[in-house]
Amino acid sequence: MNEPTTACVLIIGNEILSGRTQDKNIQFLARELNEAGIRLLEVRVIPDVRDTIVATLNEVRPKYDYVFTTGGIGPTHDDITTECVAAAFGLETYIDQRAVDAMRARRPEMEMNPARLRMATFPLGAELIANPVSAAPGYRIGNVYVLAGIPVVMQAMFDSMKHLLRGGAPVRSRAIRISLGEGTIAQGLAEVQARYPDVDIGSYPSARGGRLGVSLVFRATDTARIDPAVDEVKALVRALGDEPEDEKLDAESAG
Amino acid sequence: MNEPTTACVLIIGNEILSGRTQDKNIQFLARELNEAGIRLLEVRVIPDVRDTIVATLNEVRPKYDYVFTTGGIGPTHDDITTECVAAAFGLETYIDQRAVDAMRARRPEMEMNPARLRMATFPLGAELIANPVSAAPGYRIGNVYVLAGIPVVMQAMFDSMKHLLRGGAPVRSRAIRISLGEGTIAQGLAEVQARYPDVDIGSYPSARGGRLGVSLVFRATDTARIDPAVDEVKALVRALGDEPEDEKLDAESAG
Repeated sequence: MNEPTTACVLIIGNEILSGRTQDKNIQFLARELNEAGIRLLEVRVIPDVRDTIVATLNEVRPKYDYVFTTGGIGPTHDDITTECVAAAFGLETYIDQRAVDAMRARRPEMEMNPARLRMATFPLGAELIANPVSAAPGYRIGNVYVLAGIPVVMQAMFDSMKHLLRGGAPVRSRAIRISLGEGTIAQGLAEVQARYPDVDIGSYPSARGGRLGVSLVFRATDTARIDPAVDEVKALVRALGDEPEDEKLDAESAG
Repeated sequence: MNEPTTACVLIIGNEILSGRTQDKNIQFLARELNEAGIRLLEVRVIPDVRDTIVATLNEVRPKYDYVFTTGGIGPTHDDITTECVAAAFGLETYIDQRAVDAMRARRPEMEMNPARLRMATFPLGAELIANPVSAAPGYRIGNVYVLAGIPVVMQAMFDSMKHLLRGGAPVRSRAIRISLGEGTIAQGLAEVQARYPDVDIGSYPSARGGRLGVSLVFRATDTARIDPAVDEVKALVRALGDEPEDEKLDAESAG
């Protein structure tokens, strides 16, 4: 089997670290990357601080196949992602006329002042990523994809370029819901996990509609391996006096 | 002025990285730490992989005053946080009778099997953190606070111990909402920021009730410095033909 394709997401923004804003980008990117066969192995949330952004970029970009950043590409003084990306790669920046044109086309009355021109500024060699929502593009440079922080814009940018990503086999999953406590099933579950080292079995307790229960999630690239592991755990659950239910994965939320 | 007290949060869990679960712990901890006068400078989301957890713990614990982990302290095979924390500190683990008693008191009918005893297992020298929701405690060892992953349990643990945290002056904030585009205000805003280097001015565009606008957030430990910066920006906004509105910070959500 080939090495899995990996990714890291950098959420750049004081507003997440101050608690002012609830992050909505991690889950979107996690799901999309999973679907593209790319393993998201790390997320970092870091502040709008130049040295931190540059050092983090240079730490993670050799470690992962893909790095995605969100945030910090607007026109205001606290939008410093592009200058940091350029510094991390040791590149000059330039104003891209295609970006200027896209912004003008969207809002012809808008004055392209120096602040707005910052949104048309990119590290030399960047490949632009279309922004169908608000025109100012994202970009790729090396293995770093620079996306907006506003979820609706970030998602539109991701959709613009996701066909370019090259992942491996996507991780597939099945899940069952049980009423048994985790402590009751843990021993038997560990034994099944030991017999299926290529299936990642996760156990997640939560309340749903006021009812406590545990979701058992089985993940693997090879669905043919998932099914027998699920069957063994279902038999175990029944032997312990409970009836497992198949679970829709998208219905999930912890807490 | 003293150096600010700093923190890092480690979210341990495959379920966040796979996109299965929407994180709800970052924002809670961010707000609480901010209120306690502790600057949350970094969040990392990492998988349930022993080497990664141990290496990350040992990287961040000398870098920050406080480290908070969430997740991985249940009874199942994928709950490996405690063994990783012990390994990171080079400590043996032990079973704490007080934790066993607390778990028994909550569910007297429960068999304390080896899986459940893992939830009463701690690195030697740990200080237990009460869990009023589901009994099995969290703990502190050195500057690392080990909390549950389920938000309601994590929050209860945090509430149990937050009086022990020693922060500096909390960061205070004010925010105003404007209808001008970021690109229109950016230049003037940067000039105000330059005059108030001790006030962190952030600019966050978002749609609210279908109306686009920008929230300008002013943050500083010294409220006496925030007010004149807000006044200057309000004057700037009015000069540009818009009427700024004071904003309740808690009403915020990006996107």
